[in-house]
Order: sequence, then C-alpha cells, then structure tokens
Amino acid sequence: MKNNLLEVPQGFLFAAGEAGLRTHGSGPDVALMVSTVPARVAALFTTNRVKAAPVLISQEHWKRSRRIAQAIVVNAGNANCATGRAGLRAARQSAEAAGKLLDVRREQVLVASTGVIGVPLDARRITAQLPALARRLHPEGYEAVSRAILTTDTRPKVAGKSLPIGGRRVRILGMAKGAGMIYPRLATMLAFFFTDAAVEPRFLQSAARRMCDSSFNRISVDGDTSTNDTVFLMANGVAGNPAIGKQGVTAEKFLEALDEVAQELAIALVRDGEGARKLAEIRVEGAASAKQADAIARSIALSSLVKTALAGGDPNWGRILSAVGNAGVAFDPNRVNIFLNGTRVCRRGGAVDFDEAALQRELQARDLQAKDILLRVQMGQGTAAARFWTCDFTEEYVRINASYRT
Amino acid sequence: MKNNLLEVPQGFLFAAGEAGLRTHGSGPDVALMVSTVPARVAALFTTNRVKAAPVLISQEHWKRSRRIAQAIVVNAGNANCATGRAGLRAARQSAEAAGKLLDVRREQVLVASTGVIGVPLDARRITAQLPALARRLHPEGYEAVSRAILTTDTRPKVAGKSLPIGGRRVRILGMAKGAGMIYPRLATMLAFFFTDAAVEPRFLQSAARRMCDSSFNRISVDGDTSTNDTVFLMANGVAGNPAIGKQGVTAEKFLEALDEVAQELAIALVRDGEGARKLAEIRVEGAASAKQADAIARSIALSSLVKTALAGGDPNWGRILSAVGNAGVAFDPNRVNIFLNGTRVCRRGGAVDFDEAALQRELQARDLQAKDILLRVQMGQGTAAARFWTCDFTEEYVRINASYRT
Repeated sequence: MKNNLLEVPQGFLFAAGEAGLRTHGSGPDVALMVSTVPARVAALFTTNRVKAAPVLISQEHWKRSRRIAQAIVVNAGNANCATGRAGLRAARQSAEAAGKLLDVRREQVLVASTGVIGVPLDARRITAQLPALARRLHPEGYEAVSRAILTTDTRPKVAGKSLPIGGRRVRILGMAKGAGMIYPRLATMLAFFFTDAAVEPRFLQSAARRMCDSSFNRISVDGDTSTNDTVFLMANGVAGNPAIGKQGVTAEKFLEALDEVAQELAIALVRDGEGARKLAEIRVEGAASAKQADAIARSIALSSLVKTALAGGDPNWGRILSAVGNAGVAFDPNRVNIFLNGTRVCRRGGAVDFDEAALQRELQARDLQAKDILLRVQMGQGTAAARFWTCDFTEEYVRINASYRT
Repeated sequence: MKNNLLEVPQGFLFAAGEAGLRTHGSGPDVALMVSTVPARVAALFTTNRVKAAPVLISQEHWKRSRRIAQAIVVNAGNANCATGRAGLRAARQSAEAAGKLLDVRREQVLVASTGVIGVPLDARRITAQLPALARRLHPEGYEAVSRAILTTDTRPKVAGKSLPIGGRRVRILGMAKGAGMIYPRLATMLAFFFTDAAVEPRFLQSAARRMCDSSFNRISVDGDTSTNDTVFLMANGVAGNPAIGKQGVTAEKFLEALDEVAQELAIALVRDGEGARKLAEIRVEGAASAKQADAIARSIALSSLVKTALAGGDPNWGRILSAVGNAGVAFDPNRVNIFLNGTRVCRRGGAVDFDEAALQRELQARDLQAKDILLRVQMGQGTAAARFWTCDFTEEYVRINASYRT
C-alpha cells in the first residue's frame, strides 16, 4: 500500500474516534466519512439471507434518496446483526444523528457495521462520538478511518489512483477491511470508495459491480459470506470533469483505474486473512468457458486440503488435481498441467520429475517478498481463463476463530 | 463399536497383510475380502471428475460381470490416483492375480485404494502378498482388514447387525475408513458391506443408494470429495432366505438394518475425522422442504467459522445463523430458533438469555461421553427436517494436513 503517494479525492472528509464498542482491547472503532456536496453512490450488499441491520437500513436509505448520499457512519466491534428491531433502531439513530449534525437528510446517510453478531448495539455510544468526529473532519482523516474499521485484520488497507479525464485530474481512493467470513458472493467485507469524478448515475452502479467482479468476488479466506458485507462507491463530481458515462473513451480508463484500486485492496484482504501467512494467486488457463474456469479456480481456492498444503509449503499437486475434479466441470485429467511458482508439478494429470525439496523450500519461505505463491492450472480444453486469490489455512486461523468471543 | 457382538455374515472370508506401501511407518496395508460363492454387488463411486485407477477398473469389472463379484482387493498407503496408464495396469494386475489365486474371473474381483495421490503404485508389492492372504482367509479376519485400510484414521470402524428374515437369520457387516477428504457427494471414503442375505439384484443397488443417502452422504470432515471414494455392498445369499425384493415386508426391515449399520459407521468416520475432538449432530427442523432442510444443514456443517467455534466450545449462534443465511434458501431470520445441547441460544433470530459460561463449559467437555454436541435449528417455515454430522475444526487438522506427505 503506497499510502504516501495517495491523492485524496477533492470534497471528501474523514474522521475516526473511539466509542468503546470493541470487546477486546480498545482503540478507534467509529468513523464518519463525508462528501462536502451530495454524491452519487453505487452500493453492493451481502447476498447472505441474514442481513445485518445497517445493511437493511442502508438499502432503505439508498433507495429512498435515489442513490444520493453525503455521509457514511461506520463502526467496528459490533456487527449489529441478529439484533432485531432494536438493531434497526440503532442503525437508524446513528444515521439520523449524523444527518442532523451535518444538516443533510437522514436518507442521505449510509451506515455500515462489522464485529460480533448477536450483541445489542447501543447507538448512544456512536451518536455521542459524532459531534467530535464532525469537528475533526479532514481530507487526510482517511488513514485514521482505515484503522478504525478493522476487526481481526492486522493492518489497514488503503489504495488509490489518480488519472486525467476530460482535461481534469480525477482521484479514486478506496479502503477495506477483512479478515474473516471472506468469501465472495457479492462483495465480502466492508469497502469504501471515493472519487471526485463526475459519473453518470447508471454507469456508476455498473462500474461498481464490474469492479467487485474482478476483485472482491475473486477472493476467499474461509468460504463464509458475512451478514454485513457492504461496498459503497461515492462519486461527488468535484473534479469538474465531463460526466463519465457508458459511451466515451474515458469510461474504460475510469473502469480500469477503479478495478486496479479494488484489486489491490482485495489482494490486501487475502494477504491479511485470518491466520494467513501466504497469498496464493490461482490462475486457471485453457478452460472450455469463462464460467468453467471460474468454477475450477474457486474449487481450488476453497479446498481445505489445498489451503493446508499451502500452509505447509507442500507441493501437493494431487490435492490440487482433486479440487479441480470437484468443480463440477467435465474434463480429461490426462490433459491437465499444474505449475507452482513456475515449476511444473503435474504433467498430463500425472507425476513429473522436479526438485521437490527445492520447491518446498521456496514455498515455505517466510521472506515477505517471496511468500506469494502462483498456482497455475492448464486445463487443455480451450482458451478461457480465470484468476482467484486465496490464502493458506494455518493453525493460527483456528486459534483466532476458536476463541473469537471469549 | 460393539465388535464383540458382531456376527459375521456366512460365506465371507477376510485377511490382511503388509505390502510396505505406507510412506509413514509400517503395518498392515493390504487386504483381501472374499465371498465363498459369487455374490451380487451394489457399488457407488466418487463423483469427483478425477477418478483413481481402482475406481475406473472396479467400474469396468462391475459392469462386465453384471454386478457379480467374489473378491475385493484393497490397499492403503497409495491411492493409485493420477498415475496414468501404469496405474490402470497396476489395478488390473491386482485383480487378475487375486482372480487366479481364487479361481474366479478377473471381472469378479473389485479393487479399491486409499492413500497418497500421484505416486506410482507397484502392483508387485500387492500381488506378492496375495498368496499369503489367500491362505489366511478367515471369517474373523475382518478385524485385521478394518485396520489395514486406515490412513489418517486413529481407530478402525466396524459395525454389524443381524435380523430374522423369512425364517432365516441374516447378517450385515460393514467397515469403513476416513478420515480426510470427507464430504459427501456420493459416498466419501472406502466402505465395505457384506451380507449373507439373498437380495434381488435391482433392489440391492437401490438399497445401497438409500443407505448412503442417510449416512455417508450426510457427513463432512473437510468438504473435500476424494478421488477414491468407493462403497461396495456384497450379498451372497448364503443365509438361504427368500430373496429380498422391492415388494414385501422384509424389504423395509432389511433397509432399516442396513441404514443403521451405515449410519453407525458414518458417525464413527466423523468422530475420527482428522484432528476432530468433537462430533456435532446438526438437526434442521421446520424447513419448507426436505431439500431446503438439507441445504441448510450442509451449509452449517461446512462453515469453517461454525466448525472452529465448535473447537473452542463457543456457543457462537451468530455464526450458525450466518451459515443458515448462506444456504441459498429464502427464509425469515426472525422465525429462527437455535439450540445447543438443548439450551436455546437464539430466539426468533436474536439473542436470548442463557448461562453462557455453563454452556461453554459443557461444550468444552473433554469427557468422551459428553463431547458430542447437538445443534438444532428450528426454521419456523414448515415441517421438513434433515440431519447431518460434522466435526470441529481444530489446529490439529491443520497440523495433520500441512505435513501429510513430508
């Protein structure tokens, strides 16, 4: 994360504070993000049938305001999920209090929460902090916000990019938090994107969807989809560019920049997955269709046995081949080649000579620069390809999750 | 497992020996199972698209012999999977050698393997042992066989039952091995069933399928379906009962006995799952349809977060509710109740008062008798129900699988 190179989009202000919501330790756990002018918002929410109160309230506000918002209130430490009517009330109260303070309609305030499920959220803890947050709002406040939203994450995730569009400089800033219940069926965590670009409303939502499809929908830590997943993309138009729409050369440039920022954050989420020591990029090539390539990549990324082999630095290609076989895709195993970090470990569905000890040493490397693993599968069926990112499955993952609440 | 009460079906003989196939340690790893007369065989094989050589060869033999067999050759230590043509040859050679020894056609010999994937299997190691095995064949040899087929299992799994049918005593004996790559899409491991009952051929196969649906297809250790899964059910008719068919009162009695034996083995597999310390029975009640009940039970059983909470003895009902929400089934969370060992931990989709410390102590109990956990979910939608068995997800699971081959 090259934070020092980030340009903050114009017209956005940020502040974080401490509301005492964390059950473990202390630290910032509440944040306010504001656009100085009404901004168009694209939003994607969890596909889990159990949706947390802030998801339901944000969906409601987003519709009622016709996808216009000026503020986001977010908290960590308490997911405000499975909290019944009191939970809905708490989410509404947070939005309302922020709206009053900022003099914007309640419907133009979105909310998001992350943390423990099933514990009542006392909205007063949040609303009591809001005045101080409002006073401290600042363009550089995003760094504090990126820390306040973390739960089991070990580090903040921020990414950004700027590019010229229509003679104006346009900036994109994104931040996200993981690190468990990470599995993509829609966005899978909290992620907030801000741009000062002017963007046509319909195009903004499809841009957000495309951005998620190539980033957050291609990662997994544990295969569990959370109840609170939320992605907001706010575009306030302060940059003054001609509005970006579906037509026009600028669209593709803008989409690419968005994708780049989102992908950087998505990969950072996996790298910081609960207990993760290694990041694995899975590339499936030569599949019969994009859909099949995707299914195969997912099956490998979700296999507990592949993920524990990654933890052990074990070039166990048999488990990879078995995971390919579990993808629900018909194929001829005798055409499959598998590569780990460029070394061919499986040729035409069978064993091949390679220096196993050397590869194992390489896969076990603890050196931060060398710890990423590239897992490539050639299907020998066609020309379709897919990428997916996963992490290794370590004892530390179990330790974290066997004692999360206690 | 009440081994001492087992009655061995008449006309079946067993023997185990050591072929030196295990990469770790030593011990029996090859076995021969024989019916003294040609037996009808029901068979179910893995749904993994990568099928091991013994699966392919057994499928071939089973078809060619019109589902009649007299012997099974099984080995542990080497799965003979992803071993190309040499692997197919090795599986064929084992069957052929056993056929010659026993004076039965090659097609009437079935084979099964379990162990490491992708390592060439030297058939001579098996065929060299077969003469000694043939000499040692004995009805009580099943115990030695149940040990020879184990891999990461910590104990053998045998179950049996006898019942009167048509004035004759009929016996059922089953044995199975786990303990990783256990996830049911069809049977998910090796399991062998023997009965001296006379059973009509078509009915036998549907009985085997029903038996698997209520046992091996309702368990998960790690959500990975193996390349070698095989279930054989041999019926040799030596008991002399009137053949059991679809019609008739005896059918249901026989099916129930089969189900009971299979379910006992299936639960034993989960209990001995890799790294498992606790068995959890998941009961979903009040679902809108059997299919939905099943999907919900599976989603809970496969959730890494639920399984790690079980490991920690954490009554974390929020993760259970979230897993229900990920089942792809529409429902109203406000109607859901969740019980752990009889204690209601979630009422109408929200928190409820209970003695959390006491329940946690109970869930953490190491006492063998008390370590089973009953996880009940009431959906409040209809009357359909489903059961599923899973185990906790422990650091030991990761340790076992991060270093399986090394």
